Amino acid sequence: MTTAADQPAALDLSRSVAQLTADLVDIESVSGNEARIADAVEAAARRHGSLSVRRLGNVVIVRTELGRPDRVVLAGHLDTVPVAGNLPSRLADGRLHGCGTSDMKSGVAVQLRVLEHVGSGALRPQVDLTWLFYDCEEVDSARNGLNRVAAEHPELLAADLAILLEPTNGTVEGGCQGSMRAGVSTEGRRAHSARSWLGSNAIHAAAPILQRLADYRAREVEVEGLTYREGLNAVFIEGGVAGNVIPDRCLVTVNYRFAPDRSEAEAEQHLRSVFDGFSLTVLDSAPAARPGLDRPLARRAVAALGGEVAAKLGWTDVARFSALGIPALNFSPGDPNLAHRPDESVELAQLDRCERLLVDFLRAGPEQAGD
Amino acid sequence: MTTAADQPAALDLSRSVAQLTADLVDIESVSGNEARIADAVEAAARRHGSLSVRRLGNVVIVRTELGRPDRVVLAGHLDTVPVAGNLPSRLADGRLHGCGTSDMKSGVAVQLRVLEHVGSGALRPQVDLTWLFYDCEEVDSARNGLNRVAAEHPELLAADLAILLEPTNGTVEGGCQGSMRAGVSTEGRRAHSARSWLGSNAIHAAAPILQRLADYRAREVEVEGLTYREGLNAVFIEGGVAGNVIPDRCLVTVNYRFAPDRSEAEAEQHLRSVFDGFSLTVLDSAPAARPGLDRPLARRAVAALGGEVAAKLGWTDVARFSALGIPALNFSPGDPNLAHRPDESVELAQLDRCERLLVDFLRAGPEQAGD
Repeated sequence: MTTAADQPAALDLSRSVAQLTADLVDIESVSGNEARIADAVEAAARRHGSLSVRRLGNVVIVRTELGRPDRVVLAGHLDTVPVAGNLPSRLADGRLHGCGTSDMKSGVAVQLRVLEHVGSGALRPQVDLTWLFYDCEEVDSARNGLNRVAAEHPELLAADLAILLEPTNGTVEGGCQGSMRAGVSTEGRRAHSARSWLGSNAIHAAAPILQRLADYRAREVEVEGLTYREGLNAVFIEGGVAGNVIPDRCLVTVNYRFAPDRSEAEAEQHLRSVFDGFSLTVLDSAPAARPGLDRPLARRAVAALGGEVAAKLGWTDVARFSALGIPALNFSPGDPNLAHRPDESVELAQLDRCERLLVDFLRAGPEQAGD
Repeated sequence: MTTAADQPAALDLSRSVAQLTADLVDIESVSGNEARIADAVEAAARRHGSLSVRRLGNVVIVRTELGRPDRVVLAGHLDTVPVAGNLPSRLADGRLHGCGTSDMKSGVAVQLRVLEHVGSGALRPQVDLTWLFYDCEEVDSARNGLNRVAAEHPELLAADLAILLEPTNGTVEGGCQGSMRAGVSTEGRRAHSARSWLGSNAIHAAAPILQRLADYRAREVEVEGLTYREGLNAVFIEGGVAGNVIPDRCLVTVNYRFAPDRSEAEAEQHLRSVFDGFSLTVLDSAPAARPGLDRPLARRAVAALGGEVAAKLGWTDVARFSALGIPALNFSPGDPNLAHRPDESVELAQLDRCERLLVDFLRAGPEQAGD
């Protein structure tokens, strides 16, 4: 016996972006379970003979080869966080509700609508295009499909601009903050709390760590015209052995969000200077990404997609393109504040607007009309 | 089939205090399993017709009724912490090794040797005596046998002086510190750590709590000639939600060890003033005990038992007598630093010395020789 989940799923890219989003949402694809949705995306792309299609695991890469001087990547992940009783999708009040509607199957639907316009000949783009549909973005970075392609086939990511369709509420967000987590610790000496003077209290010794955090004034840094507001915060604190024992260790875990004018090495150096005198261990780290939006193609993209750019304050895969020297921005209809929530949804009006703005940007200008 | 543990155990109180300690240690009596040792103690006491013997659960109460003006309680618990591969007892290097040797079967052996001296008529005491052998001292106080007697038959504890045979290395320790645990907490507001200014960091807000603890100068208080050194310490700290979330709560658990010049209410008031401005909840508390050693009988006891008194810095059942208005002291051969350890042992020379000092104190002076 086979179940619905065993049947191949089919996607009709000629449907509206709203219908296509619903079709994608209804193909459950929690991280690690993307084979079925990747099959459907691959099959839909292969219907257009003018596009080259490649499959690497559950990553689908589709390219035009029009000989244009510039190439634009449209990238989106196919996976979602675990379903939370919010499938299948449902329409209500001008919104589509369900797992992945904002993060980021609405973005994938916009990618696929552009693919349909180009593949069918309805849109003759001013640039060559690469569509990247990848797996395992919502889990640890070692499994991330885009990360694997960057490591094994970096030439497939080559481009002059990357547009990630991560949720931005339909605005353009550039670059992204870096993020570093570090453990700052104190040591003491255990003793019975009835004779506390025989010991040394590691929790008391952490007072200056918390005071420096409380006193810390985060920078606001302008990078290529965008303002990045940094932050340095304790995210965990732990210490203690037993209710009658002077504790011999206290660990404060801090998270530093840093602007793209600092490398990871500079971020670590900064943390070591803030917590001078204390033991500090970097636990994990992801680099910031410069917006890179001062180049002509990126400027045209920003103008076409609404004219305003904000600094992306979270961390997204744009940093992977930035590491390859490719300007990258986030742009899609999803709402980042609804991501990963059981009541996740997306506004239908945003879907149409984003598709239209992206198609308008990509459409060949009059000077290219003859090719 | 019956095993050794099912057989009644017999105690011969005419053996030396060292042999008697070994016999007691070899009757396993982890808290909750004291019936067999209580049976043996009760049977040994009943052999002396001059003594009144009462059994309440696994508490054995033995009394003289000589009409003396003063009454002294000799109290000790029969239970031990769980056996840690350290039974049966073994003699080596002038020490007896095994579970309960220091805490406190050596003390119980001294109690029983005094009982034998008095019961056999070899010792005519200057005071009436009450021996209390009780259960469940090593577990929570609701199960403590002495606590149960105090609640149900307080008249059985009535005395002018209580000597607890908890380990003191053969010195006299008076009174005991109180102990109060309280949770001191801060609140904040969660936010994504990439937009930390939208939140309020509860761990940072705990900086003044730790600073006040670090700056705190504990009192040294003289009470009835004994110096009590207080202490106020963080014993636990916890806070944090996730590695990318501004934490909305931080909890510091503090332990205040306080001198007998403060009641529990005063101790709480003191903590509330130290942590003024923060939320504080008392988690648990035990009162301090005044030494009460300024009365004539207590002074004679101190002089007879070595002449020196130190303040007891831990918490012991002397506080229960103190709460009844009875001066109480700790005195026994065990070593408190070896209590609850797998390598627990007791020095044999201490056993003889403690028995001798206690018998000398209790022996009727010349003015009572005729009765």
